[in-house]
Amino acid sequence: MTERLERGRRWFEEVYGPGTSDGLLEMQQGVAKDLARFGVEFNFGDIYSRPGLTLQQRELLSLASLVTIGGLEPQLRGHTRGAIRVGCTPTEILETVIHVVQYCGFPRALNAIRVVTDQLVELGLDIPPATGREA
Amino acid sequence: MTERLERGRRWFEEVYGPGTSDGLLEMQQGVAKDLARFGVEFNFGDIYSRPGLTLQQRELLSLASLVTIGGLEPQLRGHTRGAIRVGCTPTEILETVIHVVQYCGFPRALNAIRVVTDQLVELGLDIPPATGREA
Amino acid sequence: MTERLERGRRWFEEVYGPGTSDGLLEMQQGVAKDLARFGVEFNFGDIYSRPGLTLQQRELLSLASLVTIGGLEPQLRGHTRGAIRVGCTPTEILETVIHVVQYCGFPRALNAIRVVTDQLVELGLDIPPATGREA
Amino acid sequence: MTERLERGRRWFEEVYGPGTSDGLLEMQQGVAKDLARFGVEFNFGDIYSRPGLTLQQRELLSLASLVTIGGLEPQLRGHTRGAIRVGCTPTEILETVIHVVQYCGFPRALNAIRVVTDQLVELGLDIPPATGREA
Amino acid sequence: MTERLERGRRWFEEVYGPGTSDGLLEMQQGVAKDLARFGVEFNFGDIYSRPGLTLQQRELLSLASLVTIGGLEPQLRGHTRGAIRVGCTPTEILETVIHVVQYCGFPRALNAIRVVTDQLVELGLDIPPATGREA
Amino acid sequence: MTERLERGRRWFEEVYGPGTSDGLLEMQQGVAKDLARFGVEFNFGDIYSRPGLTLQQRELLSLASLVTIGGLEPQLRGHTRGAIRVGCTPTEILETVIHVVQYCGFPRALNAIRVVTDQLVELGLDIPPATGREA
Repeated sequence: MTERLERGRRWFEEVYGPGTSDGLLEMQQGVAKDLARFGVEFNFGDIYSRPGLTLQQRELLSLASLVTIGGLEPQLRGHTRGAIRVGCTPTEILETVIHVVQYCGFPRALNAIRVVTDQLVELGLDIPPATGREA
Repeated sequence: MTERLERGRRWFEEVYGPGTSDGLLEMQQGVAKDLARFGVEFNFGDIYSRPGLTLQQRELLSLASLVTIGGLEPQLRGHTRGAIRVGCTPTEILETVIHVVQYCGFPRALNAIRVVTDQLVELGLDIPPATGREA
Repeated sequence: MTERLERGRRWFEEVYGPGTSDGLLEMQQGVAKDLARFGVEFNFGDIYSRPGLTLQQRELLSLASLVTIGGLEPQLRGHTRGAIRVGCTPTEILETVIHVVQYCGFPRALNAIRVVTDQLVELGLDIPPATGREA
Repeated sequence: MTERLERGRRWFEEVYGPGTSDGLLEMQQGVAKDLARFGVEFNFGDIYSRPGLTLQQRELLSLASLVTIGGLEPQLRGHTRGAIRVGCTPTEILETVIHVVQYCGFPRALNAIRVVTDQLVELGLDIPPATGREA
Repeated sequence: MTERLERGRRWFEEVYGPGTSDGLLEMQQGVAKDLARFGVEFNFGDIYSRPGLTLQQRELLSLASLVTIGGLEPQLRGHTRGAIRVGCTPTEILETVIHVVQYCGFPRALNAIRVVTDQLVELGLDIPPATGREA
Repeated sequence: MTERLERGRRWFEEVYGPGTSDGLLEMQQGVAKDLARFGVEFNFGDIYSRPGLTLQQRELLSLASLVTIGGLEPQLRGHTRGAIRVGCTPTEILETVIHVVQYCGFPRALNAIRVVTDQLVELGLDIPPATGREA
């Protein structure tokens, strides 16, 4: 295993938990495994491993970008779990989705917040209450 | 309840029918209710309530924008129902989807027209026949 | 000239004014003229010419879709002129941009409304005043 | 039937197989059939039928564009079958998805490669092995 | 002035500096001022003012979303200045752009990092050196 | 220099010409050089260097993806030059833009074909004539 792949797996497992990088590579078949491996090597080995941002910051930025693109339910679920694992709070995660509504529009933000809330509930976490300000 | 929220609910119910705004706010959990409330306050209280465009015009514009973004099936279904409620015809709704194909491309338009047609059928409405021009 | 192209030019000139379809086809060079011609034949000959929506409705729907895609300044300018030509009011045009902010987000809507306002000013039209509601 | 529609059906069936163009037009109801017909006439009658690119080139370009847009699973499946029918290899198809990751990002490419791989397996084709370079 | 607009202006000026909210509202003409005002009221009065995320977190999330959408140069410049004002470091800002390349692709990220770097240089700030790891 | 960077530069220069990879890395300042380097290492060292597609195929796929995203003028110009360098014909390049109009819509395709045609003219190449079929 190259140093980059090893570093990628180490950072991937920081985010998703021990042993999860095997699962990722197994999830794809044949040559698609190369693309999954690039994801580990590049996204985690090259990018996540850089200094300058904490893992908590990176997970919230990933969620902001995913919500903005729209329609990426499996990745939203994965990074919600990842964000919790690296120490983000449910409040930070949900406020991240609310924050980007001004850029990505209401339909994408509303679809995303349901997916994220469902994933947090599945993890057994308490969902912070609505502030209800102005209501 | 603030005046904006009240105004938002009133316009929301103009589009979706009496009592529906409670449902919307109930559909989300915890802090996600705040995002749903922003949708009522801002989209309906601030935007839909503005003078200068009729509700029929607004519903067709909403559909044009949603088809262009792509992948927003629940919103397409909702605004198809809304458009009918405020007095748009099935022809206007379906021609709106056909109109934007030149901007959003065929895959998004074809996926959307199936969703919209299904929703119109579910409402018990007659689907206008193909013009078949040139066929 | 085929009937479709002729019909396309006729509808194109309904929107953009007499003689403008020659200009469009001249604007591109070589094989790119084929793509411009497809635009006239398909967008105007096949789509704009359909019954079921008025030209005013079509121009507002085009603007809604263009604002949503973002970054299409020449087309925004062209369809602002077209919308005025077919009888839309500056208010309807500007309210269309404001309407779609809920779907496309603030940056795209704010960039678009400046382009559209500038084009309306260039046409010598009065810009409707802000409602200032709530301010 | 007009010459364009006939030509469109002929090219559509080159890609998707004998008899498939009837199915396409039947898949939609009412006026939505017009949009399906435009797809046959314009996409296949006007575009696919042009000289200058082979059908194999066109199918890979279609896949590149669809992966980039994201979220278009039925079209990805269809053009995977089409690409095989016109003589592209599973390797070319899968490498096309891998190639565009640099432009469309990892989530869209990873979601797409699973859909494409599944469709190739369904067709009974062998999936080329991972190169595993650097692993 | 309503409480929401006042709160929006206060938060807008936290990000962009004293007196800047007047400029924003002056930048647009006529009814477009309403859209600018909605931006202040909703984006800053409703969203930025929420508890749960710091202003530094919000500015990095805004940049992540803007880079992902692409083509929003004026907003990228504005939020780069805003991020610095609220206490983000040049490293955090630039690493945010690098982080999202995995989601938005290389062309958008490379175009954005040039805009952001230029803005930081214009502000007289030192650009952190390349890590050069692996080079 | 690592083997990946060296391989990336070699493939980058296959596409863009001898000595161009230095220019790319110089074009960005400070830490942005890391992102440019990732572009060389990953896009060219990992992706372009893969077997299974020729360089001509890769350049046309890159153009298809860039036209689909929209608004990426510098990259469109660069890959037009690259496509010519690796042996694609002006016809193949221009037909690629025309091919994807069915997916990305007319505004993006028309804006792109003008940029691509201008770049081909700048290179002193003959632009293939319009087929004018049906006109």
